[in-house]
Amino acid sequence: MANDHDHPHSQADRADACTPAASARTVSEQLAVVLGSVAPLPPVRVELDAARGLVLAEDVLTVTDTPPFDNSAMDGYAVIRSDLLGASVLNPITLPVVADLAAGTADNPRLVPGQVARIMTGAPIPDGADAIVPIEDTDQGTDLVTIVAAPAVAAHVRRAGEDAHAGDRVLAAGSVLWPARVAAAASAGTSTVLVHPAPRVAVISTGSELVTPGSPTRRGQIPDSNSFLLSAAVADAGGIPVRIGAVPDDENVLRAVLAELAGTVDVIVLSGGVSVGAYDVVKAVLKPLGTVHFGPVKMQPGKPQGFGHWPATDTVPGPLIFALPGNPVSAHVSFEVFVRPALRRLLGHTTLHRRTVTATVADGWNSPPGRAQYMPVIVTYRTDIQRAPADNTRAAGTDASAGSTHAEVRPASRGGSGSHLVAGLAQANGLAHVPEDTTHIRGGDLITVMLTS
Amino acid sequence: MANDHDHPHSQADRADACTPAASARTVSEQLAVVLGSVAPLPPVRVELDAARGLVLAEDVLTVTDTPPFDNSAMDGYAVIRSDLLGASVLNPITLPVVADLAAGTADNPRLVPGQVARIMTGAPIPDGADAIVPIEDTDQGTDLVTIVAAPAVAAHVRRAGEDAHAGDRVLAAGSVLWPARVAAAASAGTSTVLVHPAPRVAVISTGSELVTPGSPTRRGQIPDSNSFLLSAAVADAGGIPVRIGAVPDDENVLRAVLAELAGTVDVIVLSGGVSVGAYDVVKAVLKPLGTVHFGPVKMQPGKPQGFGHWPATDTVPGPLIFALPGNPVSAHVSFEVFVRPALRRLLGHTTLHRRTVTATVADGWNSPPGRAQYMPVIVTYRTDIQRAPADNTRAAGTDASAGSTHAEVRPASRGGSGSHLVAGLAQANGLAHVPEDTTHIRGGDLITVMLTS
Repeated sequence: MANDHDHPHSQADRADACTPAASARTVSEQLAVVLGSVAPLPPVRVELDAARGLVLAEDVLTVTDTPPFDNSAMDGYAVIRSDLLGASVLNPITLPVVADLAAGTADNPRLVPGQVARIMTGAPIPDGADAIVPIEDTDQGTDLVTIVAAPAVAAHVRRAGEDAHAGDRVLAAGSVLWPARVAAAASAGTSTVLVHPAPRVAVISTGSELVTPGSPTRRGQIPDSNSFLLSAAVADAGGIPVRIGAVPDDENVLRAVLAELAGTVDVIVLSGGVSVGAYDVVKAVLKPLGTVHFGPVKMQPGKPQGFGHWPATDTVPGPLIFALPGNPVSAHVSFEVFVRPALRRLLGHTTLHRRTVTATVADGWNSPPGRAQYMPVIVTYRTDIQRAPADNTRAAGTDASAGSTHAEVRPASRGGSGSHLVAGLAQANGLAHVPEDTTHIRGGDLITVMLTS
Repeated sequence: MANDHDHPHSQADRADACTPAASARTVSEQLAVVLGSVAPLPPVRVELDAARGLVLAEDVLTVTDTPPFDNSAMDGYAVIRSDLLGASVLNPITLPVVADLAAGTADNPRLVPGQVARIMTGAPIPDGADAIVPIEDTDQGTDLVTIVAAPAVAAHVRRAGEDAHAGDRVLAAGSVLWPARVAAAASAGTSTVLVHPAPRVAVISTGSELVTPGSPTRRGQIPDSNSFLLSAAVADAGGIPVRIGAVPDDENVLRAVLAELAGTVDVIVLSGGVSVGAYDVVKAVLKPLGTVHFGPVKMQPGKPQGFGHWPATDTVPGPLIFALPGNPVSAHVSFEVFVRPALRRLLGHTTLHRRTVTATVADGWNSPPGRAQYMPVIVTYRTDIQRAPADNTRAAGTDASAGSTHAEVRPASRGGSGSHLVAGLAQANGLAHVPEDTTHIRGGDLITVMLTS
């Protein structure tokens, strides 16, 4: 596993002197390259049970009117309203019950004046009836029923097509299928939907020092954690992780693993082996292909990384390749900044980025000049005593959350953003974003934080 | 499917007169009963690949020191610092390279004064060496290396145990296993973790009118949408949905389905059949058991519902039962208010409730007296021009999001909160909470909104 030159007190910046400045990209430039290479995956048709959280690639139209027939909104009696004018507790009216209409019945007994039908919620309203009397306004009779209230016009009648007409669009292409939208598709009479599928994402750690967690280690070996970090992050982003685990620093082995994966996944995320070391296997295997660009990104951590794709063939499209630094904090930050937005675009989302919050800095830190810094932080929220709104009328400039909560941040680990401390990273629930031109973050400063959990 | 008496202009409130007031519970009372019946599921041990998002039921301790041995934080050369005092570009010092230490090596060539070893990031630092010179400060020689900078004390040395000592707690019981925490467990040398498992939740729609979406319908029939709504909501909450689909209004059929499920799931969520209709099958089957309480909850929608459990036997614990109203909006609201917090507690979460935001009402509506109302709303955010912070020092009362965004809400469908309009519900991304004692919501009012997506 190669160093990513992001140790807080490293001399990594000297490396810049050796690198043509033209090849260093800002975060925005790198992100533009990444997102410019990514489009929503070709749509597939899936069963509704598999559609949750995916993005629609088609409009969903109703198959029939919704509801498809006039039906009762209450348990009660379908009546002819003119029979019950003046009905009240003091003037009860008793009528014969000529039918009993449960939900699901296809019966349609035509009522003539003086007749009623018992009816349950959702059952079709029989011809002739023009209002529903709720059960609470009756003696619940089954042969004869006594009614003590006069219904309003069309009372408790749900009209056919009241919700949607056949052919109406109930969901638009591009909609995220959250639960009520899955239900809307079902309600529209659809059993399948066309969606952008979840990308399959292979995750590989590189480094001859890595062993499977739980295995015995000898001097020089440590457990692989990055493949777990990045696989879980892929799943969090909505992708399907294919965790390959650790591959040693052996070009032939890595090349064989990548070649085998090429036809089976949409994306390959590697960590480690991207720097200047003698055994930087990822760079050694991928750079000669000419389809993966390696170069510094003006960020800390995450400076050295690569992005591109495996060479496509006539039969196999080349999966996207993200070659991330091996330092877990660097890998985490690079995933959040570049890989996650790309996965979300593959999924068809238009909202690609994490929610952000502006927070007050509790304990300051430093940031390198000329590089955007992403500092793993712990965000805490303090709820103030709720201020009474000064003015209860609509005020366009009112901040809806004013006076309720505010966020405060502190670095998640003593080691800083360049740390290799996985335990510190484990407590971070956000990444504070320090712009390129800022070198000192002081207590009390306001800072933008990406919320990562 | 029975009506839930929540149609906006229904006469449902009359039913209160027929119901002993003592049996009506407020939302808080019902929630207290529900949460009082629920504890985190008994822990199980799972592989790390299956642990994402679950809650730890044990502390995770490191198996060894982390890192387990002194190692290099940079690609470069392990040196004896006293050999290089005064080294600079003007005073380069050339030394023999006696070893080449790649990551993963177990080699430990003891250095004596005047010797260096090439070393890659992560490789163990050989005995005798006390600092690392980064590759950038050398000519990268492999037999002899020329060094142009004097290293600081212990430069680029990661010390054994710097992150954690063997036996240190790296994750606490109760932690949610977000990606960096799964990685921390891996890094601690653990391949499995003890977690509260995801509850298995059977979802059943009741109603003889319901057919599988996509099937042909005749007069009286409509597609089942609630089992899709609630199954997707279960999955969103972190549960494992077991979607049974629609069961007709037949007591024997429902009883048989429930009895068969009892040994295989932790929770059963039913919709429909909870009201006063003649075919209210859920109530008819469950009420005689004596283990499910049916009674009005002072809310709109969702007033009639049941909660309890299937009778336990010596061998089979009785799953929790939520009997929700059949109206999709009522089912959705009841799920959000009662079922979701219960599922999260089963999962071991301590944060049970949705994030809320205070929003400005765009278009007002009415709410029934004496009942808390949950109105499906569309929340939109407006970003104002960022105000410069008035004071860049720490201000305890500063709202961190002041001046950035504010939220505005409007009802999601013309039908109001009691509507059966699934298409309207599909657009809602929040539930506005109207307190019991409020009957009119006016444009410009501030209101609390549960964010549901």
